[in-house]
Amino acid sequence: MPIFTLLTDFGDRDYYVAAVKGVLLARAPRATLVDISHHVAPGDVEGGSFLLAAAVPSFPAATIHLAVVDPGVGSARRMLAVRRGETCFVAPDNGLLTPFVSDSEVRAVEREDLYRRAPGMTFHGRDRFAPVAAALALGEPFERLGPAVDDAVRLALPAPRRRPDRLTGRIAHVDRFGNLVSDIPADWLPDGPLTAEVAGHRATRRVGHYAELPAGEPGMLVGSLGTLELSLDGDSLAKRWGVERGSRVVVDIG
Amino acid sequence: MPIFTLLTDFGDRDYYVAAVKGVLLARAPRATLVDISHHVAPGDVEGGSFLLAAAVPSFPAATIHLAVVDPGVGSARRMLAVRRGETCFVAPDNGLLTPFVSDSEVRAVEREDLYRRAPGMTFHGRDRFAPVAAALALGEPFERLGPAVDDAVRLALPAPRRRPDRLTGRIAHVDRFGNLVSDIPADWLPDGPLTAEVAGHRATRRVGHYAELPAGEPGMLVGSLGTLELSLDGDSLAKRWGVERGSRVVVDIG
Amino acid sequence: MPIFTLLTDFGDRDYYVAAVKGVLLARAPRATLVDISHHVAPGDVEGGSFLLAAAVPSFPAATIHLAVVDPGVGSARRMLAVRRGETCFVAPDNGLLTPFVSDSEVRAVEREDLYRRAPGMTFHGRDRFAPVAAALALGEPFERLGPAVDDAVRLALPAPRRRPDRLTGRIAHVDRFGNLVSDIPADWLPDGPLTAEVAGHRATRRVGHYAELPAGEPGMLVGSLGTLELSLDGDSLAKRWGVERGSRVVVDIG
Repeated sequence: MPIFTLLTDFGDRDYYVAAVKGVLLARAPRATLVDISHHVAPGDVEGGSFLLAAAVPSFPAATIHLAVVDPGVGSARRMLAVRRGETCFVAPDNGLLTPFVSDSEVRAVEREDLYRRAPGMTFHGRDRFAPVAAALALGEPFERLGPAVDDAVRLALPAPRRRPDRLTGRIAHVDRFGNLVSDIPADWLPDGPLTAEVAGHRATRRVGHYAELPAGEPGMLVGSLGTLELSLDGDSLAKRWGVERGSRVVVDIG
Repeated sequence: MPIFTLLTDFGDRDYYVAAVKGVLLARAPRATLVDISHHVAPGDVEGGSFLLAAAVPSFPAATIHLAVVDPGVGSARRMLAVRRGETCFVAPDNGLLTPFVSDSEVRAVEREDLYRRAPGMTFHGRDRFAPVAAALALGEPFERLGPAVDDAVRLALPAPRRRPDRLTGRIAHVDRFGNLVSDIPADWLPDGPLTAEVAGHRATRRVGHYAELPAGEPGMLVGSLGTLELSLDGDSLAKRWGVERGSRVVVDIG
Repeated sequence: MPIFTLLTDFGDRDYYVAAVKGVLLARAPRATLVDISHHVAPGDVEGGSFLLAAAVPSFPAATIHLAVVDPGVGSARRMLAVRRGETCFVAPDNGLLTPFVSDSEVRAVEREDLYRRAPGMTFHGRDRFAPVAAALALGEPFERLGPAVDDAVRLALPAPRRRPDRLTGRIAHVDRFGNLVSDIPADWLPDGPLTAEVAGHRATRRVGHYAELPAGEPGMLVGSLGTLELSLDGDSLAKRWGVERGSRVVVDIG
C-alpha cells in the first residue's frame, strides 16, 4: 500500500495528471495517490518547491513524493531520486527538491530500462518519473537508480537575516486567503513591540489567530509553518497591500 | 479501510488540503480520502454547509466527514464531533454542521492529547480536526471526545413557506451550469400552471430535464436534491438573470 | 480493488463529483477513484472525448472509465456500456466514447433495477451511471446490461489528410501551457524542411523538446500523444497566435 504524493504545474484541464496516476496504478495498483497541488504556475520551480516543503512533514515517513515542474523536460537536465530516511522524492534536477537535497542520498536516475516507451520527449512525468517512483515502491533498490551526485541544482533564495534591532526576510508565499507567509522564523520574534513593513505598508499588532484582529487592521501572527505571517481577518492582505511573493519584509524591534 | 470526506475553503493552490490528508494517512494509512470540494469561498460557512448536506447522502453510512471552513480558527469557538447512526462529522462549531446537529449526538471536542504539536494556531484542520477524525476511524470512543452539548451553532436560514396560492423560498445554490437551486421542496409543487419569479424574472414552463427546454427559454424542474430548480438549456440562467445565492423565489400557483 | 476513473464537466465547486464518488464507494468500498478531469467545459462532448482518449492508455487494462458530459441528461439519449478487452466504459450515448466504440462490445444499458432511486431526472451520473459502473466492478455480467447496439453516436470530426507535399489537420486540443496539440500523426512528418501554418502564423523550426526552442520562436515537436505539436518555450503559443481548438493546421513539405 505505497503512498505517493503528486505535485505538478499540470493544472486540472488536461489529461496530464491522470496519465501520471494511471502509470503509477498500472505498476502499483494498490497505491494511495494524494495530490499536493497541480496549480503551481507553469514552470514555477520556486513555488512548487515551497509547497512541497510545506506539505511533506505532514505525510507518513514512508511516502514517495513525485514532483514535476519541469520546464526543461526532454533536455539534458537530470532526473533526481532523493532518499532521506524512509522518504523518497523523484523530480527533475532544477531546484524543485532544494529543501530536501541536503543531508540526503541523492542519485541522478539513469534507468532507460524502467522508462515507458512513448512518443515524444515532452512528458517525462508519465514516461520516466512515474515509472521510477513506482519501481521504488515495488522494491527497486535506491542505489541502483543511478550514480550518487552531490551537485544537485539548488534554488538560490536569500536567507532571512537577524540583527538585534531588525529582522529581514521575504514573502515566501501568498496563500488563497491573501495571507503573506514570510520566511522569518517566528521564534526569532522577541517579546515587546514590533513593526513589520512590506512594500511601504506597516503592521504593528501581534495576535495568535486571525479572528483576534480588529476589522480592517493588519497584524502579525505565527503561521502554520512556524514563520511570521501577515494577515487581515476575513480579507486578503495581499490584495490590500498589493504584495506578491518575493517582496522584502523588515521587522523593526522595539 | 475508513472513508473520509473533506470539505474546506482551502482552494487548490496551497499545501493545506495535502497537509490534512497527510495527517489522516499518517494515522490511518489505509484510509480512502474523497474531496467534496475545497472551493467553498473563503469563510463561506453557508456555502460549505449546503455542499456537505447535498453530498453526504450519497456516501456509505460509515463515513467520517471532515469539514473545515473555519474563519474563527484559533479562537474560543468549539470543535464539534457529531454522530448520527454510523456517520460521523468533525468540524468547527460555527454552523457548518447545521444540517446534521439535530437528532444526533453532538460533542464539544476537548482532547489536547490527540492534537498535533505544531507551530501557530492557524491550522486546526491539520493539527486538531484531522487527528480527531483519524482517532475516530481508529476506534477512539465517540463519548470520550468531550462533553455532550446541545447548543451547537446553527445557521439561521429562513425556511421555505407554503400557502395554497403561493410558495416562497430562496435560491440556496447556484451551480456550475448556472442552474438556480431553490430550497422549495419539489413535492410542494401542485399540478397545473405555475409561475416562478426571481429578481423580477419569470418562468412558467415545467419540464423534466434540461434538454426539454426550448432554446433560450427558462424553465422549472425537479433538481437532484428534490427541490425546485430554475434552468436554461445549455446556458447559465444565473448569468442571464443576474441572480445569486440568497435571492427570493416566489411561485404563484394557478 | 477496482479502479474507476471519472471524467465530467461538473467542475469543482459543486457536490456533483463527490456524490458520484459516494455512490461508487457505497457499492464498491475498496475502489480506487481517479479523476481524469472535471473541467471539461459544460456540455463539451468533444473536449471530454479528447481527454478520455488521451488518458486511458496510461491506465491498467482492468479499469472502469466513467464519463459524464451529458447535456441530454434525462432525455431519451441512451446510456452506453462499452467493453474492449478488460477495459470498460460507462457514458451517455452522445459521442463521448467515439474513440472506443469501434472494435468493442457496445450495449445500451437498460437496467432500472440497478439505478438509484432519487429525485429528479437531472443527475444520472449519480443515479444511473455510477451504480452501473459499480455493478460492473462487482461482477455484473456485461452482457446483461442491455441489448448490443451498433449505432452508437460518433463525433463527426474531420480526419487529418496526407499528400506528398502537404499534411492537413486540426488543433485537437490546447493545453494549459498553450501548446497546440494537432491531430496530425508525427510519423507522417518526413525528414527535411517543413512549414506549419495555423491561423496565418507559421513555424518552421523542428525540435525534440520545448527548451530547445530559441526564446520567442515557435516550433514543431512530437507531442506526448504522438502527434505534431506547436509550441513556444515558456509561454503560450495559443495566446500568442490567438488560436483555439478546431483551427486548421497545414504542414507544407519541402
